[in-house]
Parts: sequence; structure tokens; C-alpha cells
Amino acid sequence: MNNNKKGNILSTIYSPKDLKNVGVDSLPQLCEEIREFMLEVLAKNPGHLASSLGSVELTVALHYVFNTPYDRIVWDVGHQAYAHKILTERREKFETLRHLGGLCGFPSPSESEYDTFTAGHASNSISAALGMSVAANLNNENRKVIAVIGDAAIGGGLAFEGLNNASSSPNDLLIILNDNDMAIDRNVGALNKYLVKITTSPRYNRIRYRIYSFLRRRNIIGDNHKGAITRFTNSIKSLISRHQNIFEGLNIRYFGPIDGHDTKSIIRILNDIKDLKGPKLLHLKTIKGKGYKPAENDVTIWHAPGKFNKETGERIISANKDNKVRFQDVFGETLVELAEQNDKIVGITPAMPSGCSMNIMGEHFPHRCFDVGIAEEHAVTFSGGLAKEGLIPYCNIYSSFMQRAFDEIIHDIAIQNLHVVLCLDRAGIVGEDGMTHHGSLDLAYLRCIPNMTISAPMNEHYLRHLMFTAQNATGPFAIRYPRGNGNISDWRCKPQIIEIGKGRKIIDGKDIAILSIGTIGNIALEAINRAKEDNGIEATLYDMIFVKPIDKDILYEVGKNFSRIITVEDGTINGGLGSAVTEYMTENGFNCKIKRIGIPDEFITHGKPSELYKICNMDSDGIYNAITGEW
Amino acid sequence: MNNNKKGNILSTIYSPKDLKNVGVDSLPQLCEEIREFMLEVLAKNPGHLASSLGSVELTVALHYVFNTPYDRIVWDVGHQAYAHKILTERREKFETLRHLGGLCGFPSPSESEYDTFTAGHASNSISAALGMSVAANLNNENRKVIAVIGDAAIGGGLAFEGLNNASSSPNDLLIILNDNDMAIDRNVGALNKYLVKITTSPRYNRIRYRIYSFLRRRNIIGDNHKGAITRFTNSIKSLISRHQNIFEGLNIRYFGPIDGHDTKSIIRILNDIKDLKGPKLLHLKTIKGKGYKPAENDVTIWHAPGKFNKETGERIISANKDNKVRFQDVFGETLVELAEQNDKIVGITPAMPSGCSMNIMGEHFPHRCFDVGIAEEHAVTFSGGLAKEGLIPYCNIYSSFMQRAFDEIIHDIAIQNLHVVLCLDRAGIVGEDGMTHHGSLDLAYLRCIPNMTISAPMNEHYLRHLMFTAQNATGPFAIRYPRGNGNISDWRCKPQIIEIGKGRKIIDGKDIAILSIGTIGNIALEAINRAKEDNGIEATLYDMIFVKPIDKDILYEVGKNFSRIITVEDGTINGGLGSAVTEYMTENGFNCKIKRIGIPDEFITHGKPSELYKICNMDSDGIYNAITGEW
Repeated sequence: MNNNKKGNILSTIYSPKDLKNVGVDSLPQLCEEIREFMLEVLAKNPGHLASSLGSVELTVALHYVFNTPYDRIVWDVGHQAYAHKILTERREKFETLRHLGGLCGFPSPSESEYDTFTAGHASNSISAALGMSVAANLNNENRKVIAVIGDAAIGGGLAFEGLNNASSSPNDLLIILNDNDMAIDRNVGALNKYLVKITTSPRYNRIRYRIYSFLRRRNIIGDNHKGAITRFTNSIKSLISRHQNIFEGLNIRYFGPIDGHDTKSIIRILNDIKDLKGPKLLHLKTIKGKGYKPAENDVTIWHAPGKFNKETGERIISANKDNKVRFQDVFGETLVELAEQNDKIVGITPAMPSGCSMNIMGEHFPHRCFDVGIAEEHAVTFSGGLAKEGLIPYCNIYSSFMQRAFDEIIHDIAIQNLHVVLCLDRAGIVGEDGMTHHGSLDLAYLRCIPNMTISAPMNEHYLRHLMFTAQNATGPFAIRYPRGNGNISDWRCKPQIIEIGKGRKIIDGKDIAILSIGTIGNIALEAINRAKEDNGIEATLYDMIFVKPIDKDILYEVGKNFSRIITVEDGTINGGLGSAVTEYMTENGFNCKIKRIGIPDEFITHGKPSELYKICNMDSDGIYNAITGEW
Repeated sequence: MNNNKKGNILSTIYSPKDLKNVGVDSLPQLCEEIREFMLEVLAKNPGHLASSLGSVELTVALHYVFNTPYDRIVWDVGHQAYAHKILTERREKFETLRHLGGLCGFPSPSESEYDTFTAGHASNSISAALGMSVAANLNNENRKVIAVIGDAAIGGGLAFEGLNNASSSPNDLLIILNDNDMAIDRNVGALNKYLVKITTSPRYNRIRYRIYSFLRRRNIIGDNHKGAITRFTNSIKSLISRHQNIFEGLNIRYFGPIDGHDTKSIIRILNDIKDLKGPKLLHLKTIKGKGYKPAENDVTIWHAPGKFNKETGERIISANKDNKVRFQDVFGETLVELAEQNDKIVGITPAMPSGCSMNIMGEHFPHRCFDVGIAEEHAVTFSGGLAKEGLIPYCNIYSSFMQRAFDEIIHDIAIQNLHVVLCLDRAGIVGEDGMTHHGSLDLAYLRCIPNMTISAPMNEHYLRHLMFTAQNATGPFAIRYPRGNGNISDWRCKPQIIEIGKGRKIIDGKDIAILSIGTIGNIALEAINRAKEDNGIEATLYDMIFVKPIDKDILYEVGKNFSRIITVEDGTINGGLGSAVTEYMTENGFNCKIKRIGIPDEFITHGKPSELYKICNMDSDGIYNAITGEW
């Protein structure tokens, strides 16, 4: 990686226009420089490393061949888009990545016109790009639209719907399949095995390349000719490889696979196919973490490694003196404890075994643990099928990704009142991943579903109690908990069965009632103590534990004894705990003034959780001000 | 269809156990009798006809070969499951189909143990059945699980996720592809074209059948042998047909296509393959409406024809003396009017062109109208792509199906504040289709999404005003309206631009404020008039028109002048208009008593809309009682 000419080319590039002045032969050096630059910044400034290392050549080639931003590149999941940001007017701001006020970690149309579509949730690029391409056609624009999708994201149902529709309307969409055989964890699913098969047929590759070179040498170009070549090579491929080509089954011309790190080859084939009419797919084989040995060797860890020493490849992990653990690990360890006692318990996760620590279950009970790939909808409906036959699925999906499975929760779980434990990791403000990843809406969108039990633990012990309680419940049981560490060193308590729909009083006070749900209750407690010290205002704090069924005994007690209520939740103020409390009070004729503290009705930016809590008035100061302020 | 032996066999069958006593040679007659019976009942008692006519032989064969209910049949969308209901202990109740207290129009686990999974929304069968099959394996049960899915439903993303995962865990799932080349309207998408291609390769079919017969004659059976045969015929198929087999690309053994109306053949092949290990798919070609000429000739109309004369095939359409039209037609006609004036307007629907009257747009502007097949998620994200390039998509999806696209509304539309008009037909209580189809939750699940505008018209004129207003709005704009007819004969008014977020006063009264949204406001008005006449209670009625942004001027006026408020909406009471009003009042210190009228927090059964309104206390009596009752 040490390069004497470091920065020579990259420093001359502000936008893709400058890139076009670079000679093709110098592009490999530029790629080296981009990698070097990314590593330098990310070593100090944590981000998603491995995916973006793997797509440097692809990115350079795309901006070299296409006329961005007039031509549209639609990235699927922004992990792969750092080189894109660096080349499109944002190199100098790159070190602000994921900071409050800085660059977004994902493509963001509000940040740059080069970022054509939101890309925080997987599998949307084909549908969005198809819309753009069809629109270009209707608008008589000769615009190229390119969707860049990974081999994990293409297994999502939305991507398939896009593929299935790609040939239905006139369009010239180009789909780039960036195939590194990895999501964050190793990719699963039949489509993935199939992609591996395509690639590893040496006989096919050998003959295909010979024909391709032969025809290129004779300089046979022009659209018609190219079309003929495509059909010809596709027929040959089908005859030779004896592999089924799914994409051609869907009427999408298939090219590849080719080496995704050979910039020149990528440019050559992009130039060859870019004017072809109709939808087409170019399959690139890339290596996640490419060019940085530590990342190539362990891509799961280096997906988002945190800070590291670039020279040694050593990750800088801050010491954890007080034994605090992440909520996800409390989930993962507790699930195994439960599964040891109850052989009906199974675990399901869509492509996030290490992200939600389901991998602990996978190690202990491989046959009772299912990583279904990027397929949130399937994860929930599959859980419904398992529950139907008497198993007890703990289905773990990040809160913001659970949105994908909203209908499946209703139709495949709740209507039948099936006993599925929905575990929503990353609930509430998540911090640096920003607006696509905040788990803001779950309390609201789950609360309107009949039959749901909805809970959130105030700390690690209650996460364990809730998980323990859920196994003997009936119907769908949601437990939502935040990203990051808890507060309790001695988290491994004996789990207890708690009464469903019952909250608890944390502290007694006569002036104000504060009703909280989840870990934000700890911040409320802090604010209460400050308000008492500073102003002598005494507040009662209830940890409601359940938003649904909500504890009506507590609500009655509060309605009777208090005229001032504050609700506190790490979720949208529209439709969650605050709404439930408000509905009860007015319905029952309690004339209370209610302040609802929660995530305001807007999409919240990225930054440190503490910064975002402050912005949302959900930090200790915000709650303190609500207590002590005007009523 | 006239059959002298009518009823002879069917009358002996109460459950599948009785079916097994029928000789194979008599099964075609039984199928005739089932058809005759279905036609007789459905002629007087409207239901989904054509799909169920097409799957009679398949249903008989499945219950003949498999040991139901121990073996599980998972139907995908219950349209095809009437014969199943008739054969499984419900023949005598069949005429109660879709009536209040009668049989559900879709498979319903709460109705019968033969109905293994909810089947109102498409594409869930593979995932659910896979869960059951994997569970059987873990539970050491030798249970067969069969998913029966149509060629339209298999194009949905959820189905693909299921297919993609089918080979990931040990299971013996059998997928039956019931391929009639039709959804409600003609099927679209590349997968469908592909299925047609598979079928129409005569060379392949000829050779395949010869080999199959040859091996059968030699009585080569046993699991290993069968596996070898499969692989052999698959290789031959791939060599001969030169068509790609998508299912085998996904590691699912493919059998077929075979004639789905040849009961004996289906039984033979089911017996052959039922003990094969691993996931497998049997492709049946069926004819929608099979056996009833009028239905075969126009399957779209005969999907759900209403009452008809069985002998003549004449549909009995009740006279429409007062020119009242369906809301969906007001939508369809108005969209064309708008599109004539504004060439940026385009229409999108997932497989419901005649259901939502988008076909009117399709006739006038075929290139600006997109039926994307059963793919709600894609429909919304594709609309996002179109909007990104300056077009104005009107994306029409039934309210309960829009749940499928919840994340896409958030991530692909609302975050970017893209200007997409989301038209939710079938909002609120839909009646006979029942709990999977009621559009109960939309106001609640949309209200928690930032940037949304959410509206509902009180009548046909306001539907037109809202559609007209939406074209010049910014950001996502939802318009939800009910199934069925409106009340206005002269519906084709001049559409007007109305102020976004502003409601209107309908009638003035001093005692109570009633705030309503949507067409239920007309019922509220009726109740108000009765209450005034009977009791002298005077109520003000506001038609809020918008739930978000909500009209704060009205709310302030109401808070200041009234201590009694009733909110009225044809949607869940958890999180919709009632919640929004309640939140405002308590937040602003207005001490009002609020009664929320809406769909209670439970899944509502099927029946006539008027019956269900009564059950929910949302009819004129219910609102009257709220006005005049205890406060």
C-alpha cells in the first residue's frame, strides 16, 4: 500500500469531470490512492470499511464512463459508496463522515446531486433505478441509469420484484451486480450459491473470453452487432455451462462474471454495453476489503471495524473496565440460556447474526438458528410457520428494518395470534448511521396492530426478564431495545417472569408523574434527581415496561393523583407511549396536562447519540426543562 | 355441466377421509359435482369464482394423496380454496360463505384445522410452509407440507425470499405452482413470460414425457431412483429446451408442467414425488374458470362476478337508478382527466388495474400506466424513482395491501420527501372480504411517518378535489377512500384546489364538537340530525379532510368552545384522527372529554359493511348513542 506517488492524482480530482482527464493507464494508481485515503480517514474516524474497499475500481470505472450526475448511479446500501463520495466533490469533507453536520454514511440526495436515491435499507436500487430509467424514456432524455447492487441485497424480495419488472416497460437500465459473496456476515440463500456456480465454471469462462476477445479484435461494434454477440455468448454459455441463468430467465441480458478489480476491463465492457437497449446486468466479482490484508482476511470484523492502526492492522478497542456489555450480547447470551432449558426455542435473523449477536445461538444450536439472508419479510412469515407448529421463534430484526415486515407481522402473525417473539434491536436513536437507521417508529407502528404485546426493558436485567417472560406468553410479543451498551456491570441476573402489561414505580414524588418506557427511563431518573435538588420539585417515575397492553392501574393512579404528566420514550411522539397515555386520560375524564417527550415528527440526522438526544430534547437537560419549565 | 349422477359422490363426502374411499376413476365425476355445487351456491351468493373453478382437480388430488389435516396444505390467497373448504367438513356451511357468522372467504385457521395459515394477502405461502416443514423436521414429525401458489403470487417479493431460502435448511417442502397465467387481471412480469415459455416448448415436453413414461413402465421407483430421474430429466430439459429454469437455479427440484385438470396424472405424480427429500416444485397448468364457459371466456369479470344466472351465464347486476358510482371509478375517471391536462402524471398499480379502475388510465395512456404485478413494494419504490425524475406518480394500492410497502413509503419516498400520490382504495371496513382485507390501520401507520400528508374525502367531489390538489403538492400525499359506491349522483364536478391541512365546518351546533375524517362523516351527520330532533342536542360537525397536517385552527376553536368532543373515523382508534385530536387537546391544556369512535383494537370479521359498522358502533346508532349518552 505504500505508494510514493501518493496523492498525486487524487488531489487533482474534485469532481468526475476531473477524473475524465486521467489516462486509463493511471487509473489503477488512482484506485490505490483512493484506498490509501479511505484507510487513513477511517482508521481515525470509524465507518464501513470493507465494502467500500471492494468497490473502488467499480466506482472509478462508472464515473469514468458515465456522465454523472446527468447519468444516475443508484447505490444499493451505501456501505459501498465511499469512493463515490470521495470522487464527487466531497473528498475534503470526507473526514466529517457520520459526524453531526458532516457527510452522511450513506448516499443522501439532500447532500449531493450525485447521490440519486436514499440507500440505507437494502434491495431498493433496482426498483428506484427502473423508475428513473422509465422516466428518462418518457421524458425523452438520453440518460443512463445504473443500479449497483450487492449479491446479498439482490436476494431481498424488493430486488426480485424490481428484476421481475425490469423488462416490462421500455428502459435501458444497467444493473451492476457487485458480487463479493458476503453481506456483513457470509451470504446465504440459493441465489448466492447460484452466483458462485456461475463464476466457477472454468470451461464456460474460458470459451466465453476467447469468443469475446476474438470479436473485439475484429472491432465489431454498433448496437446491433453487440446485441448479436450477447445473444451468441449467452447461448454458448447456456450450452456450455449447463447452468441456469436466472437473470436471462427474467429477460435481462446477462454479462459476466468479470474481475471487479480490473479497472480497464470494467471500463471496456461498460463502454461496450452502455448503449444497448433494454435492461441488462453486469456481474462483477469483487473482494470485500480488497487491498487491505487485515480486511480481506476477516471481512465480518472489518465491515465496520471502528478505529484501527492502519500500519499494523490492529483495531483500537477502548478498554471496557466496568464490564458493561452491549444489549445485543445480553440478548444473544440470554437466548442461549433459554434455549438450553426449552427445546422449542429457535432463533431467526435476516443477515444480522453478528449484528444482533444471534451468532451465539448459531454456535450453540446450529440447527435451531436460521440466518435467512436479507429477507425481513420472509424472516417474519417463516417465524409464523415455525410458531404454527409449536416452536417458539425469537426473530431478531433491527427496528428500522422491521418496517419491511410490517404487513407480515399483521397478516402472518397477529391475525392468527401466533406466538412469535419479535426482538427489535437498534430501537430508538442509533447515532452515526442516521436517518435511515433510527428505530423511531416501532412503538407507533406496532401499537396499532391488534393482539400485539409491546415491551421495552429499562436495563439489561429487564431485557432478560422480558425474554424469559415472552417464552410462556401467547401471541406476538415484541421486545425493543437500543443499540450500544447498557449500564449494569453484573448483567447476568436470574431471569424472572414478570406480569404482562404491568409497569413498576421507580421513585416516588408528589408533584409530577413521569411515565417512561425503555432505557431512556434512566435519563429521566437523572433529570428527576436534578430537579429535586435544584428546584425541590418531586416527581414520581414509572417504568411502564409495556406500551401494550398498557398498565391501566398505573394510569388510573396517575390520573387520580397528578395534574401534570410527562411521558418519555425513545421513539416518535406520534402514536407511541405518549399517545397511549393521552388517550387513556382524556377517555377517562382525567384533566391532566401532558407533555410528551420523544423523537419529533421529522427524520433525524446522524451524529453521536448524545448529540441527537440533545437535539430532540430527550437528554437529561431536555427532561429537566420539561419538569421545571412552564406548565 | 348437466350431470345425471349429480350429487351422488359429493354428498357422501364430509371430510378427506371419505374422499379416500372414492375410486380414482370416479374422481373426474366428483370434480364435476364440486363445480356444479360451487356454481349453484355462488350464483346466489357472490364470491370468488374463477380461481376456485380452476383448482378443483388439484384440490381433490391433494386431499386424495395427502393425509390432511396432519399433512399441511398452505393455500396462497384463498380465492382458489373453495373446493378445499367443501371437501373439509364445510360443505353444508358453504352457502354461508362471506356472511356474518358464516365461513370466511379465505382460509382461516380459526375456522378449521384444515386451514393451516392465513391467506388473504398474496405470496406468503412458501415462507409459512417452509417454517412448518422445517418445524416438522425439528419436531421429528414425518409431516408433509405443501404450499399452493399461483403464478401471479409467486412474482411477489416475499415468495421469492421464500424460494431463495427453501434450500437453506433441511425440509421436504412441496410447492405446487398453480399456473393459470392470470392474477385477477392478466399477469405481468418477466417471471410470468418465463413460465409461459417453459410450457410451450413442445420439443422438450415431448421428449420429457417419453422418458418419464418409459421409466414408469419399467416401474423404477424408490427415493434414490426418483432423484436420479429428476436430475436426468432436468438435464435433458436444460439441453433440449434451452430455457433457463429459475427454480433449479434456486436449488429447488422442478417437475412439470403438467395438465392441472387431469386428476389421475396429478395423483400419479404427487405419489411419485411426495417422499422425495428436499424442496421441490410441481408446475401445473390450469385454466381459470375451468368448466364454466362464461368464466373461461372472461376471467377478469368472473374473478368475483357477483350474482349470476348459472344456466345462461348472465350476471345479475342490480339497477343503478341514481347514477351513483363506485369511488374507484371516480378515481379512475378523474385520473384520466388530470393526466390529459398534465403530462407528468403517471399511474401505477400492483396487479389491480380493474380493482382500482386504473385500467381507465391504461386505456387512455398505455405508456403512462404501469401494472407491476403483485409487487406492492416495487410499486412504491418504482414510483419513488419516477418522482425523482419529475413525474407525478399516482400509485394506487388497496389500504390493507399498502401495509406491504410500509418501509418503502418511509425509506424510498418520505425521507427524500418525494412527490408521490399514494391512493389507498378499500380503506376502512371493506365487508365480505373480512379481516385480512379491512383497511383499518392506514391512518395510524401513515401518521407516524414524517413528511406525510394524509387525507380522506367525505364524498366523490372531495376525492376529485384531493386528487386535483395533490398534483401540485410537495412530498408524499396519501388519499384514502372506501370500497363501494358514493352518495352523489352528479359526481363529475369541477375539481378544485383545496388548502392542504385545512378542514371545513359542515354544520353548526353549540353542545358537542364532532370531528370526522372521510365518508363516515356522512353517517355522523345523520346521527347529529337525529340527536337534534330527538334530544335537542346540537353538535357541530367538522370534516377534517386531513389527518396530517391536522387543522390546528379548527382544533383550537374546538378546544376553546367545547368541553365534549367526538372523533369519528373509519379506521383503528389507536393512532389515527382520534389520537391526533387527543394529543393536541392535552398538549394545549384544553380540558375536553373526548370519545373516539373508530374500528376497535381487534381484527374485525367479515359480513356486510352495515353489519360490521354496527358491531363497531360506527353506524348512525353508535354515533347517536355517543352524542346522547353519558359524558
